[in-house]
Amino acid sequence: MSRGLVRSDAGLLEYESWDLPQAAARTYPHASAEDLYMLMNWFSLAFLFDDQFDANSAGHAERVTAVAQEMITIPFRPPGSLPDVVCPITEAWAEVWSWLSEGMSESWRNRFASSWARFLAAHSHEVRLSAAGVQLGLDDYVALRRITVGIHHSIDAAERSRGFEVPVQVQAHELMRAMRNAAADAIAYMNDIHSLEREERRGDPHNLVTVLRRDRGWSRQVAIEEAVRMTNRHLNLYERLESKMPELCDELGLDADGRRSVDMGVEGIRNWIRGNYDWALSTGRYAEAKAGAAAEAERKGQGAVDDLLPPIGTFEGPLK
Amino acid sequence: MSRGLVRSDAGLLEYESWDLPQAAARTYPHASAEDLYMLMNWFSLAFLFDDQFDANSAGHAERVTAVAQEMITIPFRPPGSLPDVVCPITEAWAEVWSWLSEGMSESWRNRFASSWARFLAAHSHEVRLSAAGVQLGLDDYVALRRITVGIHHSIDAAERSRGFEVPVQVQAHELMRAMRNAAADAIAYMNDIHSLEREERRGDPHNLVTVLRRDRGWSRQVAIEEAVRMTNRHLNLYERLESKMPELCDELGLDADGRRSVDMGVEGIRNWIRGNYDWALSTGRYAEAKAGAAAEAERKGQGAVDDLLPPIGTFEGPLK
Repeated sequence: MSRGLVRSDAGLLEYESWDLPQAAARTYPHASAEDLYMLMNWFSLAFLFDDQFDANSAGHAERVTAVAQEMITIPFRPPGSLPDVVCPITEAWAEVWSWLSEGMSESWRNRFASSWARFLAAHSHEVRLSAAGVQLGLDDYVALRRITVGIHHSIDAAERSRGFEVPVQVQAHELMRAMRNAAADAIAYMNDIHSLEREERRGDPHNLVTVLRRDRGWSRQVAIEEAVRMTNRHLNLYERLESKMPELCDELGLDADGRRSVDMGVEGIRNWIRGNYDWALSTGRYAEAKAGAAAEAERKGQGAVDDLLPPIGTFEGPLK
Repeated sequence: MSRGLVRSDAGLLEYESWDLPQAAARTYPHASAEDLYMLMNWFSLAFLFDDQFDANSAGHAERVTAVAQEMITIPFRPPGSLPDVVCPITEAWAEVWSWLSEGMSESWRNRFASSWARFLAAHSHEVRLSAAGVQLGLDDYVALRRITVGIHHSIDAAERSRGFEVPVQVQAHELMRAMRNAAADAIAYMNDIHSLEREERRGDPHNLVTVLRRDRGWSRQVAIEEAVRMTNRHLNLYERLESKMPELCDELGLDADGRRSVDMGVEGIRNWIRGNYDWALSTGRYAEAKAGAAAEAERKGQGAVDDLLPPIGTFEGPLK
C-alpha cells in the first residue's frame, strides 16, 4: 500500500485473495527469492492495471490510453529519464522494468518490449470497442485474445527468471512462434473459463464463452463445453509442435549449450501453461461466488475497488 | 498539403527546399519507385515532427509527448485499430507503417519498432531537458545523440527497401551492433556539423559543436575541428569493424544466401553513411545562410513554420 497501488482496506483484502506470490512461484519455478519478489510486483501492477481497463465510466478510455502509452514507452526510454505520466502503476513499472531487463540482450529487450506494447495496445483497443458498443465475432475475438492474454512477454520473462536466452534464430523461427501462439491461445481460453463468473458479474463481453453464446446462439453450458474443447485442441497442437523442436535444433546446427537453452525455453512455456492453471483454481481473483467490496465494484462495472489512474489531462513529469 | 502536413505557402517552400526525394533515393538506392514514394513520405513526417520537437512554447512538451507516444504505439496496434491521438503526423505514420512493415518478419518488426520507439522517447527526453534548462556534458550528449539521430531504424528500413532480411543471429551479434552504433555516431556528428548554422539560428543547444564549445571552453572553430576529427574516428571504427564481418559469417556457418543477405545489410549501412552526407551538402534544410519565413520561424524559436500538433488535451479517436 505504501506505493499507492492499493488504496483502500477493501482493495487490499481483494488483492491479497489473489495470491500473486503463488502465481509467480508456479509460473517461474526457477526464479530466486529476490527475483520472485520482482516478478510478483510486476504481476501486481499488471493485474491492477488490467482491472482499470475494465471500467466503463466517462473519460475512462482517455485515461487508460494515456497510462497504457506511458507503460509502452517506459522500456524504450533512455536510462535515467523520467516518466511523462506519473501514477502508482507507471512508477511501479519503471522500477520493475529496470530490474526485469537487467543483464538481458538488446534482442530480448526488443522482443519483450514489443510483446508488452502489443498487449497494452490491444487492451486499449478492447476498451474502445467496448465504449463504442462493438461486439466482436468469434474470429476477431480469438485474434485479439491471443494478444490481450499477455502470454508472449510472460514467456519472455521466463528467460530472465532463469538467467538465460533462447537463441535468436530459434525465437524467430516459425515453429517457435507457432508454439508460443498455441500456448497463448490455450491459456487464454482456460483463463476465460476460469474468470467467466467474474466477467459475467462485471458485464465484460470479452470472454470466449460469452462470445460463443452470442456468435453461435448457444446456451451457456454448450458454450462452456466448446470452450473446453477449444482449449484441449490448442494444448494438443502445442504438444505436436513441441515434439518437432529437436529436429529444428538439428536443422539449425545448435551446439549443446544452444540445445540446453532451447529446452529451458520450452520448460518456460510449459511452466506457464501448468502454473497458471493450478493458480487459477485456487485464486480468489476468479472465485465463482464472491461477496464484499470487490464483488460490489464488479457489479457496478467499476472494474476495481480502487481507481488508480491520474485525472484527465494530468501530465506531471518532475521536469515539466 | 492535402494531408495537412504542410499548412502554409511558406511551409511548403521550406519543405520543398529540403529535397527529400533526393534523400530517399540516395539512402535507399535499391528501392522501387513506389517504395521510394513511401520512404519519402516517411522522411517527410519524421522531419516535420522533428521540427515540432524543437519549439519551446508553453505546453509544448506535453503536446509533443502525446504525439510521440502515439507514434511509438502505432506499430504495435492490432490491425484495423484506430489511433488515439489524431493529427496529420500520426495519420501519415499509420499509413506509412502499414506499407513499411508489409511482408517483414516479426523479428524485423520488433527491431524496427523498438529502434523507432527509443528514437522518439529520446527526443521527448531531450525536449524536457531543454524545457528544464539542463545542459548536457559531452558524454551524456553523445550517448543521447546516438539514439536521437534515428539511424538504427533507418538502417532497418534498408532491408524493407530491398525485400530481404539480415539473419537474426547476425543482427543480434555484438559485431553488427557495434557497426550500427559506429555508423549512427558518425552520421550524427556529420549531421551536427551540417546543421550547425540552422541550430545556432534557432538556439538549439543539442549540437556536438555547441556542446564541445560549452563543455571544453573551446572557440567555435576549434570545436568544429574536433567534431570533424570525431566523425573521422567513427568512420574509421566502422570500417575496421566491417572488415571482420566475413569472419563472423564463417563462425556462424552461414550459407551463400545468408552471406548475400549480410552483404546487402552492410551495403544498406554504407548507403546511409554516404547518401546522407551527399544529400546534406545540397539540401536547403541545412543551408548556411537563409532568409524568409523558415529562417524567421527558426529565429523565433518556433522550430517550424507550421504548428502540426493537436491542442492540449485533445483526444479524438473516431471511436471515442
